[in-house]
Amino acid sequence: MAKIAVGLVGVTGYTGMELARLLVGHQGFELVRATSRADAGKKLGDIYPFLRHYPLAALEITPPDPDDLARACSLVFLAVPHGAAMDLAGPLREKGLKVVDLSADFRLRDGAIYQQWYGLEHRQPAVLSEAVYGLPELYREQIVRAQLVANPGCYPTSAILGLYPALKHKLVDTNGIVIDAKSGASGAGRKATVGTLFCEVQDSFRAYNLGKHRHTPEIEQELSVLAGADLHVSFNTHLLPINRGILSTIYCTLPRPLELAEVEAAYREVYKDEFWVRVLPAGQLPEVRHVRGAMFCDIGLVVDPRTQRLIVVAAIDNLCRGASGQALANANLMSGLPFCMGLDSPPLMP
Amino acid sequence: MAKIAVGLVGVTGYTGMELARLLVGHQGFELVRATSRADAGKKLGDIYPFLRHYPLAALEITPPDPDDLARACSLVFLAVPHGAAMDLAGPLREKGLKVVDLSADFRLRDGAIYQQWYGLEHRQPAVLSEAVYGLPELYREQIVRAQLVANPGCYPTSAILGLYPALKHKLVDTNGIVIDAKSGASGAGRKATVGTLFCEVQDSFRAYNLGKHRHTPEIEQELSVLAGADLHVSFNTHLLPINRGILSTIYCTLPRPLELAEVEAAYREVYKDEFWVRVLPAGQLPEVRHVRGAMFCDIGLVVDPRTQRLIVVAAIDNLCRGASGQALANANLMSGLPFCMGLDSPPLMP
Amino acid sequence: MAKIAVGLVGVTGYTGMELARLLVGHQGFELVRATSRADAGKKLGDIYPFLRHYPLAALEITPPDPDDLARACSLVFLAVPHGAAMDLAGPLREKGLKVVDLSADFRLRDGAIYQQWYGLEHRQPAVLSEAVYGLPELYREQIVRAQLVANPGCYPTSAILGLYPALKHKLVDTNGIVIDAKSGASGAGRKATVGTLFCEVQDSFRAYNLGKHRHTPEIEQELSVLAGADLHVSFNTHLLPINRGILSTIYCTLPRPLELAEVEAAYREVYKDEFWVRVLPAGQLPEVRHVRGAMFCDIGLVVDPRTQRLIVVAAIDNLCRGASGQALANANLMSGLPFCMGLDSPPLMP
Amino acid sequence: MAKIAVGLVGVTGYTGMELARLLVGHQGFELVRATSRADAGKKLGDIYPFLRHYPLAALEITPPDPDDLARACSLVFLAVPHGAAMDLAGPLREKGLKVVDLSADFRLRDGAIYQQWYGLEHRQPAVLSEAVYGLPELYREQIVRAQLVANPGCYPTSAILGLYPALKHKLVDTNGIVIDAKSGASGAGRKATVGTLFCEVQDSFRAYNLGKHRHTPEIEQELSVLAGADLHVSFNTHLLPINRGILSTIYCTLPRPLELAEVEAAYREVYKDEFWVRVLPAGQLPEVRHVRGAMFCDIGLVVDPRTQRLIVVAAIDNLCRGASGQALANANLMSGLPFCMGLDSPPLMP
Repeated sequence: MAKIAVGLVGVTGYTGMELARLLVGHQGFELVRATSRADAGKKLGDIYPFLRHYPLAALEITPPDPDDLARACSLVFLAVPHGAAMDLAGPLREKGLKVVDLSADFRLRDGAIYQQWYGLEHRQPAVLSEAVYGLPELYREQIVRAQLVANPGCYPTSAILGLYPALKHKLVDTNGIVIDAKSGASGAGRKATVGTLFCEVQDSFRAYNLGKHRHTPEIEQELSVLAGADLHVSFNTHLLPINRGILSTIYCTLPRPLELAEVEAAYREVYKDEFWVRVLPAGQLPEVRHVRGAMFCDIGLVVDPRTQRLIVVAAIDNLCRGASGQALANANLMSGLPFCMGLDSPPLMP
Repeated sequence: MAKIAVGLVGVTGYTGMELARLLVGHQGFELVRATSRADAGKKLGDIYPFLRHYPLAALEITPPDPDDLARACSLVFLAVPHGAAMDLAGPLREKGLKVVDLSADFRLRDGAIYQQWYGLEHRQPAVLSEAVYGLPELYREQIVRAQLVANPGCYPTSAILGLYPALKHKLVDTNGIVIDAKSGASGAGRKATVGTLFCEVQDSFRAYNLGKHRHTPEIEQELSVLAGADLHVSFNTHLLPINRGILSTIYCTLPRPLELAEVEAAYREVYKDEFWVRVLPAGQLPEVRHVRGAMFCDIGLVVDPRTQRLIVVAAIDNLCRGASGQALANANLMSGLPFCMGLDSPPLMP
Repeated sequence: MAKIAVGLVGVTGYTGMELARLLVGHQGFELVRATSRADAGKKLGDIYPFLRHYPLAALEITPPDPDDLARACSLVFLAVPHGAAMDLAGPLREKGLKVVDLSADFRLRDGAIYQQWYGLEHRQPAVLSEAVYGLPELYREQIVRAQLVANPGCYPTSAILGLYPALKHKLVDTNGIVIDAKSGASGAGRKATVGTLFCEVQDSFRAYNLGKHRHTPEIEQELSVLAGADLHVSFNTHLLPINRGILSTIYCTLPRPLELAEVEAAYREVYKDEFWVRVLPAGQLPEVRHVRGAMFCDIGLVVDPRTQRLIVVAAIDNLCRGASGQALANANLMSGLPFCMGLDSPPLMP
Repeated sequence: MAKIAVGLVGVTGYTGMELARLLVGHQGFELVRATSRADAGKKLGDIYPFLRHYPLAALEITPPDPDDLARACSLVFLAVPHGAAMDLAGPLREKGLKVVDLSADFRLRDGAIYQQWYGLEHRQPAVLSEAVYGLPELYREQIVRAQLVANPGCYPTSAILGLYPALKHKLVDTNGIVIDAKSGASGAGRKATVGTLFCEVQDSFRAYNLGKHRHTPEIEQELSVLAGADLHVSFNTHLLPINRGILSTIYCTLPRPLELAEVEAAYREVYKDEFWVRVLPAGQLPEVRHVRGAMFCDIGLVVDPRTQRLIVVAAIDNLCRGASGQALANANLMSGLPFCMGLDSPPLMP
């Protein structure tokens, strides 16, 4: 079977790098375009020596050009900053290409909320209206039929998967949820800044953007759908001295005393057909290394009767499940390919 | 002036190592005994090559012997596991020595609560009754007169200092406080275990002991005193891939809308004479590297009007402020020495 | 096609863990036995949560038993310490099983040299005489026909691959070669020791075993074959604060002035058909992250005319190419399977 | 006694940061000027939150201005890039200030060699001629009388101290010395570049600048003086995923068989009065953590009779001994203060 030709716009960031890695051996997609203004003219193997000797290393990087992409590709991944993604998605959609956008531009259904949190007017309302939120455990049916998928943010992926069963089964109060999230440094992107230099991150730990991280409205949007009610969360983020990985510790109030077994059963029921979500046995908690390089979301559950709380711990790889791997899974679904194609390597340990 | 002779029981763990480091150049104390069953007969410089060339490196390690300690020392630091500390403190106190105990054995005023959380009967109730909780910002007066100081746990130090002004000024609800704490690996001790090997911790992150960490009753004991009411907290811990440092993110509910300035003013007022507590300006948040090797507790404050919460972020060095440095400060106070003696080196950056 | 049944003796160390990871999705082998005395009775998923949801996670760990292995398997990987491997290989070979031994027990052709460096008499001289040294770039033909493969040590793999073309083409003096090698901490094994605790390795770096590392005779044995003369090297090792990876910087004296281009051409010629060896273009040097989790040996070349030296830098992943991945490649060859089967995932970056 | 007023030109790099740290509690110097074009107008505590609560935090950063520095200071530290240092040193020396230059501009006595390696004409030959190379173990007498000290490079400090006794006592051949050096990332500076981002350095290791590092001529200049003969070395560098620390493994050929004891005795003799150089006992090797934050150079010695080599391992903290600490020691000497003033805190462990 001929492979489907795909393009990657924005190959030089960590999400672009991760997509390139995942596409190296993909059986259904062939990466035929990889774009970057800064590195146009180089080969993929020049900027990514780790890919040398794979055929993909020979691919020449081109400047982003919607016409060229439209001629060459059936589907395009956008791995560019928000704002830029919006401006590219319009022309690409007009030309009939399927698009998976890894930026935030099409995640928020309400353009006004987008403007409020991102400080930009949404310039593509028509495209926005056709976007499907690409969290497969929630929207698999719609993704299969989608032309444009808004790939979820890394933090929201962990938070929403962590809370989905609890909200669906009304195990917890919708008020007062606190999400204390910690991410590896690749989540901060690959731009040269002093704040993300090795010596500024190594052997340290810090909180940032407390109460105002831009992933907040995305989390609230999806949790409100699940809860069937308008819901606000306290969402707070921290920077870990690791390359990859997010661990979100989620605090919920129990409306009534609950046994852990009951909670666990609800989680197992919701995720019983989901290969990529692992509900851990009682007494075990996730570690980000256990999902390194893979699509798994590991979920640990603790009921604390002293404070009548459910604590959910959800771990993902921010680059794979939280960005490029999930984008690839969405592209698989949109293209009629097996959901897990190209994503089945187990986590790298240690 | 002649220096005061002190002893250190349990020199081979990370808290013993840190005490040795801090005592190297101390102007008021001379370390005359350092004990360890396993390393008796060696010199301090043999087990701690980083101390070579300092006179202290020549000190011979001896087995712990209360009689010998009593003959040689005026004050003894106990850096041994809980249970063992209890059995040593009794004889040492009988012989009239001042004691700073770094274990948990004398932190909980109620022996029954000790037994409930530590699974041990408290075998020294008389000694327990004279113990002073060694958090100088709360108990300086009592510490000055104390014969036995129970040195606070690392996590409690960050949590209590982070919440003290909020509770004192009744800025927050006493219900529903969540403490999401993260610690460097030295907090796990220096015992050889697979779970704390380099390759099990590096490039990873995990939660542990959720809802049941033994520092919980200690935090609740002190916060209840400050709040003037029985208070329960959800206290939860994580393991960071760093050597030193604790960062606690503390979530409180505001009983009424509050401006950040009002909260900040309260914090500044409470800590206005405390050199070691740094209340950061609005918009800034602590980083554990900024307190590395030092006694500072850095506190960042965020008011989140969307969820009506106060978020307090408190960072300390778990080995220095959270253990051995604080023990030394307490010994300074107990001995009539300046509080900060031997503790004034700035944090090591980067 | 039915898969070939294989066994893994010693599943709890890092090489066992890595083999389990690589066998998860292997198309030609089915892991039917995984043994460990300590963890017998548990399932593989219990000790390796990162493997949960893969069918392999359900495999029950058994105690090592040659009879049982012989009944169930066609080929066995030995991932146990030297000495123990020797005692298992004998019975397994007697029962007709193919064996890939990851220990040092069958790497040295001369039992007397084994005894000299490992302090043990070689108790299986007959088995030793049939062993093939499993470096495919050197011995592919023999490995295809082998019944017992001695899987190379991690350091020797990097050193031998780094020097092979230089010696084959007589570009360098056989005297005076210095190998300055650095390894990640997984090379130190997974035994609980204070020296490999996180806080003893993190943010530090040290040399160890200078001039007396046990991989020395293995390196000299193979280099002597390549050089056609008895050759001694100064081989020296260091511990890196990383999980995986070896980088060997190799210093050779040039017998005559040489251009880099001539050296590079020789290297390219020797490795022209070797997918897993990447000779970098002039001006580029290897990084261990570029081979993380993969079979590549990346080689950088520098000619220093000031000191008339060739400097070769060779990087591998010590667990994959330096141990379990190479063992799997050898098993592929011994079993008539494609060399690269199950080993084609690109390196994990970042 | 009134403190001596000193200035620091270039406060925002890691060496500037380290000097600020070391000057916080200095008994003999008062930092009265800290300059930076980019951060002028801010207070030191604004850019260095770790210094808050120390009086120094209130110092306002100013733009660099030789007139202002001359009015305010007696001695100035230059912590700016090479080239810039040259242009500042001239005017400062004209105005009679003592200068400690941390750049490379005055380390090479021969301006032509400077030009060859740094690609810049030396614009201050007169100042160059009065410069003293600031390695106290070699030039203490001259430093005491110097007006301008060229502070040694980080790598050269480790290499020269490591080889000094061997060359002085003619224990090794002057030909064929190989220095394999590894440095923490702070050595790469604090400029925002992709190559030194956390995710590009963490969990990795790489060689760089093999055979052409600019510290080469500096090492050769000083070793040639010690050897009494023109000497060339193969000097090669690597990047460690740690904040601080250099470990140099130095390979020398023995002209005749030597016992380790003889070598060790020579090293001990040379360094018998040097507090900051620690010759380790036979069988022990340095670790960079053992010198973290301090002035020590730890030296381990291995005689390898198989290859007739002496291997010297020298470890320093690149920021303290390799830059700012040594600069401070030089300033102490130039100012008649005790050599170790402000430098006596033991290394931070772990």
